[in-house]
Amino acid sequence: MRVSVFIATSLDGFIARTNGDLDWLPEAPEDHGYDAFMDTVDTVVMGRHTYEKVLTFGAWPFTKPVVVLTSRPMIPPPDGAAVTAMHGTPSEIVAALAATGVQSIYLDGGVTVQRFLAAGLLDRLIVTRIPVLLGSGLPLFGALSTDLRWRHVRTASWPSGLVQSEYVRAEAP
Amino acid sequence: MRVSVFIATSLDGFIARTNGDLDWLPEAPEDHGYDAFMDTVDTVVMGRHTYEKVLTFGAWPFTKPVVVLTSRPMIPPPDGAAVTAMHGTPSEIVAALAATGVQSIYLDGGVTVQRFLAAGLLDRLIVTRIPVLLGSGLPLFGALSTDLRWRHVRTASWPSGLVQSEYVRAEAP
Repeated sequence: MRVSVFIATSLDGFIARTNGDLDWLPEAPEDHGYDAFMDTVDTVVMGRHTYEKVLTFGAWPFTKPVVVLTSRPMIPPPDGAAVTAMHGTPSEIVAALAATGVQSIYLDGGVTVQRFLAAGLLDRLIVTRIPVLLGSGLPLFGALSTDLRWRHVRTASWPSGLVQSEYVRAEAP
Repeated sequence: MRVSVFIATSLDGFIARTNGDLDWLPEAPEDHGYDAFMDTVDTVVMGRHTYEKVLTFGAWPFTKPVVVLTSRPMIPPPDGAAVTAMHGTPSEIVAALAATGVQSIYLDGGVTVQRFLAAGLLDRLIVTRIPVLLGSGLPLFGALSTDLRWRHVRTASWPSGLVQSEYVRAEAP
């Protein structure tokens, strides 16, 4: 099983303003590899907050099955959206999805990313930095009990100023 | 007057561990442009914490004059080091240095960078990302009263996994 993150942050590491707003994201950025990335995953896994944010976008953006991590009743998905609810620890989630044949997960949402990182279960990290400092907001990264080292795979930049770096988890030295 | 920052951070935006340790920095990284950057500045400006950290490095690393921002008595610099103490707001510091003919400042240290950013006085930001997540530490960036937008100038990466991006302050839209 491979667990990947594909996410945009401000230069100071926020994925949203404190109230969840994404107004600081470029409205129509160049293609920066999202579709190509999506082709590499089987299933999208996100927390409840991210799911509820996605619901506000209007059209449901995912063509892959989506798993929402929640232990509470979930707002029903729009017609035609393949959404299921799960709950458990990151390793339980990974094991349950692997048992259904899932081989590659796209993990979305700050809290969810932090939980999987803290559990040592994130394999690939693709971060796109937007050239703005917000000063406050919801952070991508959180506390860890140990350093996590990564291997840099590639970095690309676009005329809009977006800089995207891909990392894979480094094996223990 | 141009005010620049040239600094390394972890992927989660820390410039040092909470206790100031820099043990997570690569020991002998490739040349990633530090000397070329230093050629573009007249004077180094840093906070007292950073100054006291630099004193622990052994050899004094700066050939340019250094200004330490402190309102308290300063540990005397090593022989041969050109170090003076100043205190005041960022705009007072900039004005005082400009009056002595300084045209380009290298600003160092997290608290100092945050103060100048909050005052809107940082012009150029060169950040080198080390491929490690620390989980906690001293952050490069802090709170702001407004978004600060930047123009991406260039990004480079090295075989060690360091990724360096240079930004200049974007004019108001």
